Amino acid sequence: MHSEPAVSAHQTTALLTDQYELTMVDAALRAGTHERQCVFEAFTRRLPGARRYGIVAGTGRLLSLIERFRFGDAELTWLSENRIVTPPTLDWLADYRFSGSIHGYREGEVYFPGSPLLVVESGFAEGVILETLILSVLNYDCSVATAAARMVHAAGDRPLAEMGSRRTGESSAVAAARAAYIAGFSATSNLEAGRTWGVPTMGTAAHSFTLLHDTEEEAFRAQVDALGVGTTLLVDTYDVHTAVETAVRVAGPQLGAVRIDSGDLPELVAAVRTQLDSLGATGTKITVTNDLDEFTIASLRAVPVDSYGVGTSVVTGSGSPAAGMVYKLVARQGADGEWVSVAKKSSGKATPGGRKWPVRLLNESGIATEEHIRIEGNDSQGRSLHVDLMTDGVADDRYVGIAGTALAREHRKAAIAELPADAFRLSRGDPALSTTYS
Amino acid sequence: MHSEPAVSAHQTTALLTDQYELTMVDAALRAGTHERQCVFEAFTRRLPGARRYGIVAGTGRLLSLIERFRFGDAELTWLSENRIVTPPTLDWLADYRFSGSIHGYREGEVYFPGSPLLVVESGFAEGVILETLILSVLNYDCSVATAAARMVHAAGDRPLAEMGSRRTGESSAVAAARAAYIAGFSATSNLEAGRTWGVPTMGTAAHSFTLLHDTEEEAFRAQVDALGVGTTLLVDTYDVHTAVETAVRVAGPQLGAVRIDSGDLPELVAAVRTQLDSLGATGTKITVTNDLDEFTIASLRAVPVDSYGVGTSVVTGSGSPAAGMVYKLVARQGADGEWVSVAKKSSGKATPGGRKWPVRLLNESGIATEEHIRIEGNDSQGRSLHVDLMTDGVADDRYVGIAGTALAREHRKAAIAELPADAFRLSRGDPALSTTYS
Repeated sequence: MHSEPAVSAHQTTALLTDQYELTMVDAALRAGTHERQCVFEAFTRRLPGARRYGIVAGTGRLLSLIERFRFGDAELTWLSENRIVTPPTLDWLADYRFSGSIHGYREGEVYFPGSPLLVVESGFAEGVILETLILSVLNYDCSVATAAARMVHAAGDRPLAEMGSRRTGESSAVAAARAAYIAGFSATSNLEAGRTWGVPTMGTAAHSFTLLHDTEEEAFRAQVDALGVGTTLLVDTYDVHTAVETAVRVAGPQLGAVRIDSGDLPELVAAVRTQLDSLGATGTKITVTNDLDEFTIASLRAVPVDSYGVGTSVVTGSGSPAAGMVYKLVARQGADGEWVSVAKKSSGKATPGGRKWPVRLLNESGIATEEHIRIEGNDSQGRSLHVDLMTDGVADDRYVGIAGTALAREHRKAAIAELPADAFRLSRGDPALSTTYS
Repeated sequence: MHSEPAVSAHQTTALLTDQYELTMVDAALRAGTHERQCVFEAFTRRLPGARRYGIVAGTGRLLSLIERFRFGDAELTWLSENRIVTPPTLDWLADYRFSGSIHGYREGEVYFPGSPLLVVESGFAEGVILETLILSVLNYDCSVATAAARMVHAAGDRPLAEMGSRRTGESSAVAAARAAYIAGFSATSNLEAGRTWGVPTMGTAAHSFTLLHDTEEEAFRAQVDALGVGTTLLVDTYDVHTAVETAVRVAGPQLGAVRIDSGDLPELVAAVRTQLDSLGATGTKITVTNDLDEFTIASLRAVPVDSYGVGTSVVTGSGSPAAGMVYKLVARQGADGEWVSVAKKSSGKATPGGRKWPVRLLNESGIATEEHIRIEGNDSQGRSLHVDLMTDGVADDRYVGIAGTALAREHRKAAIAELPADAFRLSRGDPALSTTYS
């Protein structure tokens, strides 16, 4: 006998939380300050890796996770036995369901330093308790989507598949596949992402399949028998050119694709293209999957690659695995019911307080010129960036589930199309738009 | 109405899998090669970030996840509707449960390039299908544990708390807390890690709690009322020295600790220590939590810090968020039943084939001198590194759950104690032990 794995415990998301969120509720409850109306804001102070823009991802996942943020008997018993909070707080947690409102940037939207990605309005205790979950989701998913968007631009018209499930935690892998898809990837290897989020899935065979068989030819024949001549054969287990010859012999010139997972790609890909053409397999595509990132993808622009598979770099945010999101109290009611803008003053971490209304200012050609944020009043010109994501604790159906994921992918296209050309440079630099306040 | 979030789908782990694992099963089934007995091995070709040793973590989680790797009606329906595999494969998947054996390094063990961390022995289809799940868990958890171990060494006798849940995916956060604990951290902020894995939890309050109240004094008083004078007060929301004075006035000189989350730490900590002492709070501890990693922790050795809280750097593997683990077929039976060692020959990725028996050679002082790996025969001197983790599909109870996590933490101490002093240098360098084969 041994305990159940963590996955079963995750049916409720309530303990995916830092202890201090609960001890703050405990202390506020005792002080009678827990129901003061508050505005919390999720934003980043800078773009990681000196990137020029970020892509919002995670919101659609998050809204569903917030709806399941409930303390059941098992959670309450554990909190009680471990004396994390006092009995009045246990009673409060037992009744907890988020009943406030969440406004924010649409998933797939572009963001910049200071962009108020998510604005949570609720009583203090109701809103503070969601901090850890909100940041876990936004920090990871935005990191992946932001890296993925750079790869999508570098790849131009060639499709990208996300294949990095094995290089990140097993549940993060599902989120990564979804975030990369929102950012413009075409498919994923991850089956759960296919089932849960409607991301198209792909994949055929690994080196182990070739090694299982007594000859490469036997392996190719087994794969073509099962998956048809339109399959992708992996040609670098032994000698690439021998494998390409064998592949076309076994599958015929209608072979769908060959995959190359190692070697000096520019030379090798060009040689394989020539070889395929000489064998009459002019329609057979070449896909490469060897430790790619946005820079190697860009370097392959002149090489006859047809598609890319990206692993480690996309699921780990290509050097920036967390997006730097923070969740701050920016306004609250005082004991007298008056609203007060608040902000901490710690050195290097000062942030503007107050409820914010962001707009993207565009020039006459529809190109974005500024991220403008009005504090305490929504009357700016430009494209308004906030939508109602959750009202009285209920998520807007349009933004969740499979449909929400597809919508986010569409929205990203429109948002990216507004960016100035400078935004797409891969080198480190300033944000493509300045964030201004009034 | 909208679809359920991903968490519910994760009750079975079977779709946390790359599609090609299933299409390989499909093709092997059709070719009649799916039951060939195989040996798969998980290992890394190099230590990420030019580290000098790695720490095994994830195994205890993984064994439970493998036991739950089952295809239920919902999974089979989805696979069928999306034509991922053919009907005979659906039947095979419906009956799937892993029935093979897994040997491997104990969790908490030290590893090096080439160390055969996990050896899976089963029929081809049974073993290949676990590849993605095995690598997701090992790549993330080993990355965190390896980074954490360096921080533990840098901190010396001072305790470290893992506080990075918000900087990684919400489920990875639980795994990270567990991996850091195995590597020697003392506690975590993550409540689910406390419940599921028995990691001690900690945490008191954030800046938002101070900002909620009309004055800092009111906030401190509310916290001390609820949590007692032994609590930790966060003193950098406004002015640190004013806050320290207020904290001691409110809680008395028995105040447990103050936390500093920003600023120039060496100077600030020294000044706060002097101030606390002058206020009679000589027993009040100082904890710091401002973007720490192994290098900043080492730089604070001469500063009167009492404990550290580490966030982003530990949960993202301090620059190396994936451990570089791969899962390879290394031996199999042929059509004639004879065993064959196999290895792919791709450039730069060649690996020794065959079933391996690793031992750590020690000198007369008990210090490790070599990672020695015998291929096809276990008769070396030295400390044998493989244990039976799973037999006929059943995990050894000692290595799973809360007890397994505690055991791993103990084992790490013993394994670390064998390492030569050079292993603990923070600079980039060669592995502390060479891996040899015979």
